[in-house]
Amino acid sequence: MTRRDRRLGAGALVALALAGLAVTAPARAAPPPAKPLTMADILAASAPSDWRTPDPANLMYLDLAAGRVVIELAPEMAPKTIGNIKTLVRANYFDGLAILRVQENYVVQWGDPAPDDAKRPLGAAASTIPAEFQRPRAGAPAFTRLPDKDGYAREVGFVQGFPAGRDRKDVWLAHCPGAVGVGRDTAPDSGAGTELYAVIGHAPRNLDHNVTIVGRVLQGMSLLTTLPRGTGPLGFYETPDQRTPIVRVRLAADLPQSERTPIEVLRTDTATFTALVEARRNRRDEWYVRPAGYIDLCNVPIPVRAPPKP
Amino acid sequence: MTRRDRRLGAGALVALALAGLAVTAPARAAPPPAKPLTMADILAASAPSDWRTPDPANLMYLDLAAGRVVIELAPEMAPKTIGNIKTLVRANYFDGLAILRVQENYVVQWGDPAPDDAKRPLGAAASTIPAEFQRPRAGAPAFTRLPDKDGYAREVGFVQGFPAGRDRKDVWLAHCPGAVGVGRDTAPDSGAGTELYAVIGHAPRNLDHNVTIVGRVLQGMSLLTTLPRGTGPLGFYETPDQRTPIVRVRLAADLPQSERTPIEVLRTDTATFTALVEARRNRRDEWYVRPAGYIDLCNVPIPVRAPPKP
Repeated sequence: MTRRDRRLGAGALVALALAGLAVTAPARAAPPPAKPLTMADILAASAPSDWRTPDPANLMYLDLAAGRVVIELAPEMAPKTIGNIKTLVRANYFDGLAILRVQENYVVQWGDPAPDDAKRPLGAAASTIPAEFQRPRAGAPAFTRLPDKDGYAREVGFVQGFPAGRDRKDVWLAHCPGAVGVGRDTAPDSGAGTELYAVIGHAPRNLDHNVTIVGRVLQGMSLLTTLPRGTGPLGFYETPDQRTPIVRVRLAADLPQSERTPIEVLRTDTATFTALVEARRNRRDEWYVRPAGYIDLCNVPIPVRAPPKP
Repeated sequence: MTRRDRRLGAGALVALALAGLAVTAPARAAPPPAKPLTMADILAASAPSDWRTPDPANLMYLDLAAGRVVIELAPEMAPKTIGNIKTLVRANYFDGLAILRVQENYVVQWGDPAPDDAKRPLGAAASTIPAEFQRPRAGAPAFTRLPDKDGYAREVGFVQGFPAGRDRKDVWLAHCPGAVGVGRDTAPDSGAGTELYAVIGHAPRNLDHNVTIVGRVLQGMSLLTTLPRGTGPLGFYETPDQRTPIVRVRLAADLPQSERTPIEVLRTDTATFTALVEARRNRRDEWYVRPAGYIDLCNVPIPVRAPPKP
């Protein structure tokens, strides 16, 4: 027995039998290869065109003393809200504000800790925004459907790299870990983007259709997930010293190249991604004794990487 | 606009329309009440018999310098493995060992960091245990079924307070956040309980049927979720100083009353729990504009509390 190597998932890198590709390719009579491909194999074999560079105008940096959280915005899914957030960011609205709330297995939330009568003015930004909890399918970006069903939506998949749900009429971004949404009061239009949250726990999909999601954390999740949990109701911090200050929030497009974080994201509308999904639906490396034959939307990895050296 | 109160879910305590109780009660012609009950209401109205005190012989304390993680073991689901773990614990096997691995959105794992040729001897404990990835339904404890379907199992629900899946033949514990499982090598019988892990991310249900789950964290999750992530492959720490030492692991039954953590768990085989599930499937308080009508197994809360003062 080699206890040194005893680890959950050691050698359990994601595997892909070529047969698995049949999810999109026509059935083939050829036998599967002896050794299934791993996720690492699939990514190593990816073409440059399998990757995309997010638009710097839609990359939002949440800079904390401990490091940078890189958030990609999805303006085609929540145009008004994201427009308002960009107005706030460009006015340096968030600089010096704070993380207000960290609730175990739920969300990290940031905004203005001041009482109502002392809050920072919004400047040119609006204080209410019509809810953008979902949008019509008509005119929406392409949807890459997962093969599996989901109890929270008629169909699930990906829109421009973001986990999403879809029914006959609408499409919406899903509350998977890393989803960034807009805190609001009871009024659906009360979420103007002055308070944002990121999901840090098992996906609270019950929030789908109830909050506007504006994007997703691409990098830096552990800067949020490791924050001390708030001890007040709903995980709010109880004293100012418990809060983590926000150094600044910026759009990549507003920073010089030297201050940007180089990043690429695997496209979700590629054969490479389809192969990756199948490799995760049915893990066939030797560690697994029983592949699941299913994958939950929020378990699908969306790889990011630093751009390869030219 | 009251930005001070703008918070995701402020006032969004779980609500229950009496109509919702129809999931277990016969349909009623009476109109639903004006104000739906919250989860807090449901718990406040609970009877002492809705709660159970875990058997001290099945409560395992993982004591870290920062505090205590309380784990409940499920011996009817993995008797041989749990027997071996108890043998290890009673020999103080884990005392002075360490948390070896923290992988973002996945697991925290603990055990012996020494190389193979220097590992702590197992004493009276076995070094291999036949896999207990699932058990036959015949003779299994009662199963409280959730009303909703799940892609990972034919049916999902709860066994003695543990989230579980079931098919025609077997029943098994599910990899929800907080699930405690047994790290193993490739051989299915290589998980003897010397390395254990707790799930800290979105449920990796693909591990169901592939690992023996022995229990669930009842209290202290944030002591694990906030640990620094390991920077090595699979989230393993790369240097000894990065590891968090384990002060001791004990069974509650082996400690004097004064050193135990008083705790009660809501029974999952009660009408109160059924009402709670329905309140979470359909959240009807004024904050929600669209109840989900569905709940994922791993989103069902299983409340714990300190025993009420007599």
